[in-house]
Amino acid sequence: MKSYREELWVETQSRRAYMNITPQVEGAIRKSGVTEGLVLVNAMHITASVYINDDEAGLLKDYDEFLEKLAPHDAPYRHNDTGEDNGDAHIKRQIMGRDVTVAITNGQLDFGPWEQIFYGEFDGRRRKRVLIKVIGE
Amino acid sequence: MKSYREELWVETQSRRAYMNITPQVEGAIRKSGVTEGLVLVNAMHITASVYINDDEAGLLKDYDEFLEKLAPHDAPYRHNDTGEDNGDAHIKRQIMGRDVTVAITNGQLDFGPWEQIFYGEFDGRRRKRVLIKVIGE
Amino acid sequence: MKSYREELWVETQSRRAYMNITPQVEGAIRKSGVTEGLVLVNAMHITASVYINDDEAGLLKDYDEFLEKLAPHDAPYRHNDTGEDNGDAHIKRQIMGRDVTVAITNGQLDFGPWEQIFYGEFDGRRRKRVLIKVIGE
Repeated sequence: MKSYREELWVETQSRRAYMNITPQVEGAIRKSGVTEGLVLVNAMHITASVYINDDEAGLLKDYDEFLEKLAPHDAPYRHNDTGEDNGDAHIKRQIMGRDVTVAITNGQLDFGPWEQIFYGEFDGRRRKRVLIKVIGE
Repeated sequence: MKSYREELWVETQSRRAYMNITPQVEGAIRKSGVTEGLVLVNAMHITASVYINDDEAGLLKDYDEFLEKLAPHDAPYRHNDTGEDNGDAHIKRQIMGRDVTVAITNGQLDFGPWEQIFYGEFDGRRRKRVLIKVIGE
Repeated sequence: MKSYREELWVETQSRRAYMNITPQVEGAIRKSGVTEGLVLVNAMHITASVYINDDEAGLLKDYDEFLEKLAPHDAPYRHNDTGEDNGDAHIKRQIMGRDVTVAITNGQLDFGPWEQIFYGEFDGRRRKRVLIKVIGE
């Protein structure tokens, strides 16, 4: 069994942002040499998500409005009593998910026609990490 | 390490539908010959989910009403400005999730008493695919 | 390839509860002898979640209030026509997720600074199980 690990550093300019990280995951798979296996991609921070959906600008705005309506940044959160201001971001991340697991077949992401891997940031403007872990052979 | 891959084709008669696909996943595990490992089951389309819960008709209606209340089909979505009418389905799929990973032990799905694997369709009436990827030995 | 399986039994004193189970997962990884691989941790029951987020008391209350607002225990659910009273718990579990997959690197959970594995119970006061499955080498 082979395994490979890579950290991807991200820093967004706005509090919330959505970045297509598919090319970086494809690069990690190539470097791993794994042709059959699984790749796990996860946010290493707890106010961010990794998820799979379409790379369409309108959709990204729909997600952002939906999440802000469900858990508005300016609502009161007990977590913010600790001095943080990111209570909403911990909730938004749970809705969008922490990680995705994707099959690797013939050395490629085994994807449907529109699947793209996204990093969803809900408390940005600082450096954060995404973990890419490949196992297989 | 062994690996095995199978695509499951689905086509629902209604826009939204919930199908128990546990028998098909069990079949793929048998064909794989894997007795210890993991199986990843994921929607290959981005307006559908694979999730694990109970096969109970009332619950499926509860899920459907809950999702339609959170992201109604007839609400305005920016994604629909592209000519699509499935903005709601992209949101419903995020809530229910894209994929499940299940342990394989002694050649079987290592499940609790009521766990069943479901395909959740939110923009159906056309042919779509589910990926079943087995790795282990 | 090595594999290892362990069941963790839990019983909460309240209907809803949030328990940090990171030490138990770390213990299972040590027992597995796996230094490079993946660990899957999943609720074996369909009214409970395993998720990763911060171990901060205010945040746990925020999650609980958010989930209770989205799917109140006392609202009507068709699932409850079966004689159950846990229709809300099946919805809460979908929002928080069934399972997490975590990378194992150098024999440790490959975690960011604040990641902790939680068991989220939405229909407690009875004995339930969490599955920990380790694969790798």
